[in-house]
Amino acid sequence: MELLARARELEAQGRSIVHMEVGEPDFTTPEPIIEAGRQALADGRTHYTPAMGLPVLRQAIARHYQQRYGVDIDPGRVVVTPGASGALQLLMSVLINPGDGVLLADPGYPCNRNFVHLVGGEPQSLEVGADTGYQLSAALIEQNWQDNTRAVMVASPSNPTGTMLSREELLDIYQVVQQHAGFLIVDEIYQGLIYGAEGHTALEIDDDLFVINSFSKYYGMTGWRLGWLVAPSDKIDLIDRLAQNIFLAAPTPAQHAALAAFSDQTIEILEQRREIFRQRRDYLKPALEDLGFRISVKPHGAFYLYADCSQHTNDSAAFAHDLLEQMGVAVTPGMDFGENAPERYLRFAYTTDMQQLQEGVRRIRQFVAG
Amino acid sequence: MELLARARELEAQGRSIVHMEVGEPDFTTPEPIIEAGRQALADGRTHYTPAMGLPVLRQAIARHYQQRYGVDIDPGRVVVTPGASGALQLLMSVLINPGDGVLLADPGYPCNRNFVHLVGGEPQSLEVGADTGYQLSAALIEQNWQDNTRAVMVASPSNPTGTMLSREELLDIYQVVQQHAGFLIVDEIYQGLIYGAEGHTALEIDDDLFVINSFSKYYGMTGWRLGWLVAPSDKIDLIDRLAQNIFLAAPTPAQHAALAAFSDQTIEILEQRREIFRQRRDYLKPALEDLGFRISVKPHGAFYLYADCSQHTNDSAAFAHDLLEQMGVAVTPGMDFGENAPERYLRFAYTTDMQQLQEGVRRIRQFVAG
Repeated sequence: MELLARARELEAQGRSIVHMEVGEPDFTTPEPIIEAGRQALADGRTHYTPAMGLPVLRQAIARHYQQRYGVDIDPGRVVVTPGASGALQLLMSVLINPGDGVLLADPGYPCNRNFVHLVGGEPQSLEVGADTGYQLSAALIEQNWQDNTRAVMVASPSNPTGTMLSREELLDIYQVVQQHAGFLIVDEIYQGLIYGAEGHTALEIDDDLFVINSFSKYYGMTGWRLGWLVAPSDKIDLIDRLAQNIFLAAPTPAQHAALAAFSDQTIEILEQRREIFRQRRDYLKPALEDLGFRISVKPHGAFYLYADCSQHTNDSAAFAHDLLEQMGVAVTPGMDFGENAPERYLRFAYTTDMQQLQEGVRRIRQFVAG
Repeated sequence: MELLARARELEAQGRSIVHMEVGEPDFTTPEPIIEAGRQALADGRTHYTPAMGLPVLRQAIARHYQQRYGVDIDPGRVVVTPGASGALQLLMSVLINPGDGVLLADPGYPCNRNFVHLVGGEPQSLEVGADTGYQLSAALIEQNWQDNTRAVMVASPSNPTGTMLSREELLDIYQVVQQHAGFLIVDEIYQGLIYGAEGHTALEIDDDLFVINSFSKYYGMTGWRLGWLVAPSDKIDLIDRLAQNIFLAAPTPAQHAALAAFSDQTIEILEQRREIFRQRRDYLKPALEDLGFRISVKPHGAFYLYADCSQHTNDSAAFAHDLLEQMGVAVTPGMDFGENAPERYLRFAYTTDMQQLQEGVRRIRQFVAG
């Protein structure tokens, strides 16, 4: 985050910066969603919605699971939240008591650990590597379950690695967590942004798990702050009460706008964008490998490459700093994602266009050539 | 909240319901704000803003304090949040450690206590009555300061009582809190909605306190989820980091829309609405008193009357329940606001038009006549 601020500062000074650090799509929200938002405002939809969200939006999300993944979800199990952040906070508050442990992959999205801390829980980070696709596995969870472990959180596709859990891996994880009577939380906020892999949802496995999702990434609605979660029916009342207390409701204009997110017209735009992301990944991965960065597990989702930079440095943070200051290329050092050999890793985001990515690669080539 | 749900359920069944329980203005967001929101969407303003908010909005809020209250605030001290809820959560997380106490008025807004609980703190509720205008006083705070007390929170105007703290009362409170090296948090989310009293802000007193505010009530932007806080400069970095973790940023369309909130054209609309609220209060207060409800301190702000109903019942919750079921009038029982003789109180909100208020009074008259 300091690096992002510094990159913007340099840019404001007139420096040309290639942004490969940004965790949001470069695309504006698709036009049909924007238009639905504008129409809702023109219609005066500016009051609070129920804390759980507009009933029609909860139904639309449930229908989406049916249409895209063939899973029947009771709309009453869908909770609309202010971003996935809101969903994550609700779940941690409902499931985790002070002292409870939550197993998480390292590297992983740093806010997950912070939300565990926020409710007085203990993040139990497990180092993951190429052997498990930088994901938790049933075996890792079994080996590392502690007396106070209460929940397991996985992300598929993952930030920062872009790797996914297969349906079978997820099922194995679910079964281990069930055996320990724990809660399984599956972060699917990059769902839909996958390239050359089959999409699925953890909700295919069973009702007795928690899924977090978002309109930010695939649907391109970051600034609107809209996400959702799907929870077992018996937890919904508690989540409702907590939502009323913590944030009252998700933004109303965003909820009305999101009703257009599942339309054929919007999906067509989103699928075109997905193809562009795929092209970027297919360019950037070999280009970085060509420069001596190692990406040992091919990422099939999100818009990140998590690359081993040990051929060039044993201090990725210093490398990222110098790359920004000297060459105007912003990338994210491993230290932002945990304590699992962070000095060996950099995250490259392909949330900028091909021309910028090519310019970034040109500058990095010059930088590593010394 | 259950009562609100039941009222909506009865309404869905075709029953005529007079809503005197709703905590948001009945007015739609003023047209200039809506138009600014629609324009921002047309311009594609759909990405994240910085966690602290759009710099131009932070500047506009600071300018508002200068223009309306003659107070100079560094825009760097203004933090834009997803509703006042977001501001409250940030502050509690930054200021309160597990076990720390927070002094609060009872009756008071129930979410305040819940936010203290959420961070592991201890809400230290003090019963307040007519003698202090249903507000904390310097003397009450001095008498009830505990070893673990860390902060004091006051609200002016207050929910549910609509009463205000004068500049002098607030200064006295500030000085006591300073003597104990505690934090003073002043909830000003109903600021601007005052009738026949002089407006002021706690920021006139000193920089070393925390103010929470919102675009929801006076500015009529409830569903947009936009608030702000003003904090001492030395706490801003910590708040920034926490905001990045908890909610990333407030909704972008709302922030752009709010830039129109301080325009002359908007203020003219809002001042007309304020006059309407004043007329409603001036009708409803004597009408309720005429029916035997006692309102011992004249409320000068917000849109609530907190009335002693002991002439009619010794169980305000049952009274509210029966009034809704039998007469279709929804009001909020005292139990929603604390443990200070809640069975003697009802909150009447005048967030519905005069015709509805008159109909409500007619039905209540019939109800109490038995």
